[in-house]
Amino acid sequence: MTDTVKYLLDESRIPRAWYNLLADLPAPLPPVLHPGTGKPIGPDDLAPLFPMALIAQEVSAEREIEIPGPVRDVYRQWRVTPLYRARRLEQVLQTPARIYYKYEGVSPAGSHKPNTAVAQAFYNKEAGVKRLCTETGAGQWGSSLAFAGALFGLDVQVFMVRVSYDQKPYRRALMETYGARCVASPSAQTQSGRAILAQRADHPGSLGIAISEAVEVAAGRDDTKYALGSVLNHVLLHQTVIGLEAMEQMALAGDEPDVIVGCTGGGSNFAGIAFPYVGRQLRGGRKVRVVAIEPAACPSLTRGRYAYDYGDTAHLTPLTKMHTLGSTFTPPGFHAGGLRYHGMAPLVSHLKELGLIEARAHHQSQVFDAGVTFARAEGIVPAPEANHAVKGAIDEALRCREEGRSEAILFNLCGHGHFDMQAYIDHFAGRLKDLDYDEAELAMALAGLPSVQAA
Amino acid sequence: MTDTVKYLLDESRIPRAWYNLLADLPAPLPPVLHPGTGKPIGPDDLAPLFPMALIAQEVSAEREIEIPGPVRDVYRQWRVTPLYRARRLEQVLQTPARIYYKYEGVSPAGSHKPNTAVAQAFYNKEAGVKRLCTETGAGQWGSSLAFAGALFGLDVQVFMVRVSYDQKPYRRALMETYGARCVASPSAQTQSGRAILAQRADHPGSLGIAISEAVEVAAGRDDTKYALGSVLNHVLLHQTVIGLEAMEQMALAGDEPDVIVGCTGGGSNFAGIAFPYVGRQLRGGRKVRVVAIEPAACPSLTRGRYAYDYGDTAHLTPLTKMHTLGSTFTPPGFHAGGLRYHGMAPLVSHLKELGLIEARAHHQSQVFDAGVTFARAEGIVPAPEANHAVKGAIDEALRCREEGRSEAILFNLCGHGHFDMQAYIDHFAGRLKDLDYDEAELAMALAGLPSVQAA
Repeated sequence: MTDTVKYLLDESRIPRAWYNLLADLPAPLPPVLHPGTGKPIGPDDLAPLFPMALIAQEVSAEREIEIPGPVRDVYRQWRVTPLYRARRLEQVLQTPARIYYKYEGVSPAGSHKPNTAVAQAFYNKEAGVKRLCTETGAGQWGSSLAFAGALFGLDVQVFMVRVSYDQKPYRRALMETYGARCVASPSAQTQSGRAILAQRADHPGSLGIAISEAVEVAAGRDDTKYALGSVLNHVLLHQTVIGLEAMEQMALAGDEPDVIVGCTGGGSNFAGIAFPYVGRQLRGGRKVRVVAIEPAACPSLTRGRYAYDYGDTAHLTPLTKMHTLGSTFTPPGFHAGGLRYHGMAPLVSHLKELGLIEARAHHQSQVFDAGVTFARAEGIVPAPEANHAVKGAIDEALRCREEGRSEAILFNLCGHGHFDMQAYIDHFAGRLKDLDYDEAELAMALAGLPSVQAA
Repeated sequence: MTDTVKYLLDESRIPRAWYNLLADLPAPLPPVLHPGTGKPIGPDDLAPLFPMALIAQEVSAEREIEIPGPVRDVYRQWRVTPLYRARRLEQVLQTPARIYYKYEGVSPAGSHKPNTAVAQAFYNKEAGVKRLCTETGAGQWGSSLAFAGALFGLDVQVFMVRVSYDQKPYRRALMETYGARCVASPSAQTQSGRAILAQRADHPGSLGIAISEAVEVAAGRDDTKYALGSVLNHVLLHQTVIGLEAMEQMALAGDEPDVIVGCTGGGSNFAGIAFPYVGRQLRGGRKVRVVAIEPAACPSLTRGRYAYDYGDTAHLTPLTKMHTLGSTFTPPGFHAGGLRYHGMAPLVSHLKELGLIEARAHHQSQVFDAGVTFARAEGIVPAPEANHAVKGAIDEALRCREEGRSEAILFNLCGHGHFDMQAYIDHFAGRLKDLDYDEAELAMALAGLPSVQAA
């Protein structure tokens, strides 16, 4: 039997600084705009929502931003995460490709999300904040912030998208075990939530609505701030520990990736593995293909428009330029709840526009077939979100087989599927429908995009 | 913030040999008896159920038994498992004790069970076996054997205790994701199962019944063997990698345990962490207190009789001398399904008789309180079984606080609770009843013990 190989590093090799892609961009990121004035916003506009240290990271042009000691101390519990050579999977696929995966499921919350949750909790605690409000889809982000809040002594309130709240009681239980409060969104606790419920009492919710509710609560209280699990520059920044570690581990393996694959919802785990490599290429280093895999039912990168849009449904956030399906677009209720977002991180969108990354969309039955193949070969059951990356990596490996090329493929296995087994049950029972979004709804959501443009 | 410290070892430090406690016992283990003749059984009596390599390990007197290369190759995926100093928990408890835990939840199946599942699958594959049959309670063992079967290309059939089969569909889904077949026990597929169903069609099942079914299927087919997840000497042997690694990691921490704590159902994770230390003490080394924590609803070590008994309900197995509640005893349906077994490993029972280990029993609400305290401090949500060890360790730490003693406490956190969140939901809702066994049923089960004695 040819066996999977693990490349592990001593915890002294946890990166000392995050990597900031803003420092190496060949063209500047379009500014964030105030929805009323259409003018670029300043730090003060964001101060009701975030502590100043995170706002500074959002706009910093420094290439390296030091990871504070207390954050590294918490990282040490599960970092450096393993990087594996998937020898058993290669054998099953009969591919000449060398497949590597970075495994973020070893964190206490089971995904990459604690990389930023811990950092955000730290900076908020330092700023004297008592309480954090946030949204969550499938619950990976909410449970990660709950975990970080427990460590730093912060109250955490999570608005969880109603459909996931009902479908995934165990993710909710995990948040509650960590001491967080979890509310189904839309809720009666906020104006934004009540407005949606007035239109439709059984509304299934969306990340855009849950963001509105969390932002509204945070903006209304001095001791409370907002925390976001993806999309923003500082969130993507914190995730770069993934790619920075992977670079060292690939060196240990004596190899270099030809292709990097990640799944994209808001873009943070994808950015985490890809940005350090993209930055190296932009500084004249080795060229690498970077492929984003998204759900066909919520295809912001492959079918969205690159335009200014709101991050939430109630239009409480500033405007960012990104690939978007429109802030009123409600994706169908497929299983990868973490990927059900109408927009894409501005930085990831920018790279797409610059031709530095590719994107592909897949339906969920194909994605789960890939996940089961992976689980039987490698022993790890991926989260539905991560199955998108697995599908992308397997497709690249099969292409290598067809073309007779021995390329190195690196993908990010961003979380385990222990809280998502109902999706596997549905898959085996043939009940996983390949959901499509409503074309008319998409057209309407795109028609409703704000007309504002950067000055 | 005082932070949890991780002691990790390079995979080159995965032990090269398992430790066999039989080599160091001050008094020999009572022999295994044939139920018909009352005479000690020989290897041939076990040949229908196990490959000869495992039978040899069952009776070996060698102190060290080499771990085969292919088994170590699979171990490398998640071993060496981390050993943590629980500094955050110590702070919460305000104890002068130093609390260490070995974390086995990082394995693909989420518990210590793959340590023996992989070894058993390897030896069976080597012997030309095509199919393995086994039983499972909560599903940790079944999913681990399913994982190992997938790696070595063996068919796996799991008889899952009915009450867990219904309560834990996600564990079942995990087994099926690995490609195993999972059947609720008692089932109509075996004589033993049909006999039970004839008495009571809605029988909730027990590990004893599920063992009968798996043994019956394995004994009836040449290409099929049986695999057991605990109790037997060779199973406990395979788990000693836990304690052997912990010894090296404690040396790295510059410390030595004064107390070792583990939870006990069949005894394998407890043996895994404790036996290498007990052996060292028996060879004249450092003395250590060893404490087994068991559920008050199934208290074989604290309330059972030390006597010869069957391992299963239908009396298909040989007789072993152990602490037992009687093979017809059906424990109430508490949440730590992995601890719902009427007997205790003969080796663990023997140590208890020799005064080398202590035992305590706790009700489940206390045990879950301990688990929640641990989760909020350390970030890891333990399995219900592991919560028993957490409870034991916390009690020892509180004793140290009262006595003003700074002892080192080492416990085995044998698995995570991601598949057991319903138990946490029930706990938070105040629905976790402190179930007691039926005294009359226990008396009857003990009265029915076989009268056979070793010649």
